[in-house]
Amino acid sequence: MLDLSLPTGLRDLLPDHSAHLAELSGRLQQVFASFGYRRLFLPTLERLDVVERGLSASALADVMKFVEPGSGEVVAIRPDITPQIARLYASRPDALPSPARLCYDGPVLRAREARAGRPREVYQAGVELLGAGGARYDAEALLVLAKALDSVGLGQAVIEVGHARFAAAAIEAAGLPKKALAEAWDALARKDEGVLTALAAKGRGAVSARHALPRLAGLYGDGALKRARVFARTVPGCGPALAEVEAALKLARRQGLGEVAVDLGEARGLGYYTGLTFAGYAPGAGAAVATGGRYDQLLGRFGRPGPAIGFGIDLEFATQALERAATARPRRAAPRR
Amino acid sequence: MLDLSLPTGLRDLLPDHSAHLAELSGRLQQVFASFGYRRLFLPTLERLDVVERGLSASALADVMKFVEPGSGEVVAIRPDITPQIARLYASRPDALPSPARLCYDGPVLRAREARAGRPREVYQAGVELLGAGGARYDAEALLVLAKALDSVGLGQAVIEVGHARFAAAAIEAAGLPKKALAEAWDALARKDEGVLTALAAKGRGAVSARHALPRLAGLYGDGALKRARVFARTVPGCGPALAEVEAALKLARRQGLGEVAVDLGEARGLGYYTGLTFAGYAPGAGAAVATGGRYDQLLGRFGRPGPAIGFGIDLEFATQALERAATARPRRAAPRR
Repeated sequence: MLDLSLPTGLRDLLPDHSAHLAELSGRLQQVFASFGYRRLFLPTLERLDVVERGLSASALADVMKFVEPGSGEVVAIRPDITPQIARLYASRPDALPSPARLCYDGPVLRAREARAGRPREVYQAGVELLGAGGARYDAEALLVLAKALDSVGLGQAVIEVGHARFAAAAIEAAGLPKKALAEAWDALARKDEGVLTALAAKGRGAVSARHALPRLAGLYGDGALKRARVFARTVPGCGPALAEVEAALKLARRQGLGEVAVDLGEARGLGYYTGLTFAGYAPGAGAAVATGGRYDQLLGRFGRPGPAIGFGIDLEFATQALERAATARPRRAAPRR
Repeated sequence: MLDLSLPTGLRDLLPDHSAHLAELSGRLQQVFASFGYRRLFLPTLERLDVVERGLSASALADVMKFVEPGSGEVVAIRPDITPQIARLYASRPDALPSPARLCYDGPVLRAREARAGRPREVYQAGVELLGAGGARYDAEALLVLAKALDSVGLGQAVIEVGHARFAAAAIEAAGLPKKALAEAWDALARKDEGVLTALAAKGRGAVSARHALPRLAGLYGDGALKRARVFARTVPGCGPALAEVEAALKLARRQGLGEVAVDLGEARGLGYYTGLTFAGYAPGAGAAVATGGRYDQLLGRFGRPGPAIGFGIDLEFATQALERAATARPRRAAPRR
């Protein structure tokens, strides 16, 4: 009996699913192009030392790396396209003047499944807006994402906005002992006010900041921005982050952005993000169909410092969401008896 | 000074070139879909032992392979998509009934540059028609290629048709000593009748076949089919191959195929091809923009024996050809003085 199995954790996409994914991919590129984003094709492999500049230590653990027999170079199969674009932008200022609107579409690969049921190979499409700082470009990124989701049929997706420095500033202000930090982030991810209260008691920061800390877990949902304003008055380090979120939303709404959700206690791994963060959630997808944010420190690591923002759409999660919506719809319209 | 270079032999494609390549890629998929070919997304990595089933020993030397640290599996970065599709077709008869019309688009990678100036990473799009033997499907493959080239603006490309067994049968019939075989194929590739004449003198085959051998080098261009008919009468092993070429061309022409070139002394590396072979040549491209052929033995190596035919288009060579045509055209229309 022939064993034709694939390497652990990899899959083929069969025709129906592939067709849906290809259609989605094509439409996204049309939307990106309509906003002036220009497509790039970037290589499957990068030198490992270049990849290392763009990723956190935890992300690096999941990079597929090996020595090329011919050249002896240590190379990596790209785990993320954003640092590739940062690398190209930094090395080709002649070809890519600032601000640069760039987009991509292609697979990235990880050494193993990040979580059960997560594929190792992920098809992504996204945009990067490089050399562009401030609310104006934050708003642009949100608008492009909203339009992209809408155009592919995911208009019902919720865009959730946060900020990479809000919760970090609050946790810092509370002066938690180092060994309590991971626990605090975990508790925040679970929105567990009880654990945060217990941890805050061990803090050495200002009383007001320690007292406020557990309320981080409630800075989402209806009235989140209002509660965040109160919170930021008590925990001063949070003010600038909140101001950036409010400025971006104000501008984006003026340009037509619809309702968004806010979560200033967002605690997902934020990697290279330094400012506004956002994600798109669609019913029927296993996880966020889109994630993005501002990364104002990444370009400098490649030698051309400057602000930047971007997002990536997970084509498979987005396709899943569309397929489930398509299956659900006829039933609602004409229930079987 | 930062060194942000890429691994040896790899490149980024900048925005203008990427846009042309993306547009070409999108149009090709439209043409493939219009003929009923269904898109597949296949993984970047395969197990090496599976890749080995699909490739010749010489092709395997250029495969990028490494051990996965996590699983210990020996994996390869795909060097060719056709054997991947053969593998999937063989392992999923439930999902892919015969005949199966499938298509793809994506990069393949080699361990080194095959020749100076040839990139290691190649963007390809193509079709495979599996479980489908005979002239009817040979003609279909030719027609899809012609339509594809025409639709992307490469209508001026020349399709050249040959057969994997014609020259092989002639060389076999001449009974050349083993050590002369490589030299004979080289001479044939250079269309060098003189060397073929000298080699034929060392043959142990029928006098008529040895006498005919040098004429293999002339079985292209105007009147090639007529000369091939005369040739095949003298070298009987060539008859069935010629009959297949003529049947395919007759059917394809009846369905609208335009002028094609014929070269029955074609000697490019034919890998897994067993029958009709063809290539598309466009002015301005560094090499063939498309190559394809019939491969009736490959599917069996994966456990679901059956005939098959397909072709791949090199998106970069095709883009080059289009870009050079675009540069040349305005000059012709309005010469500068």
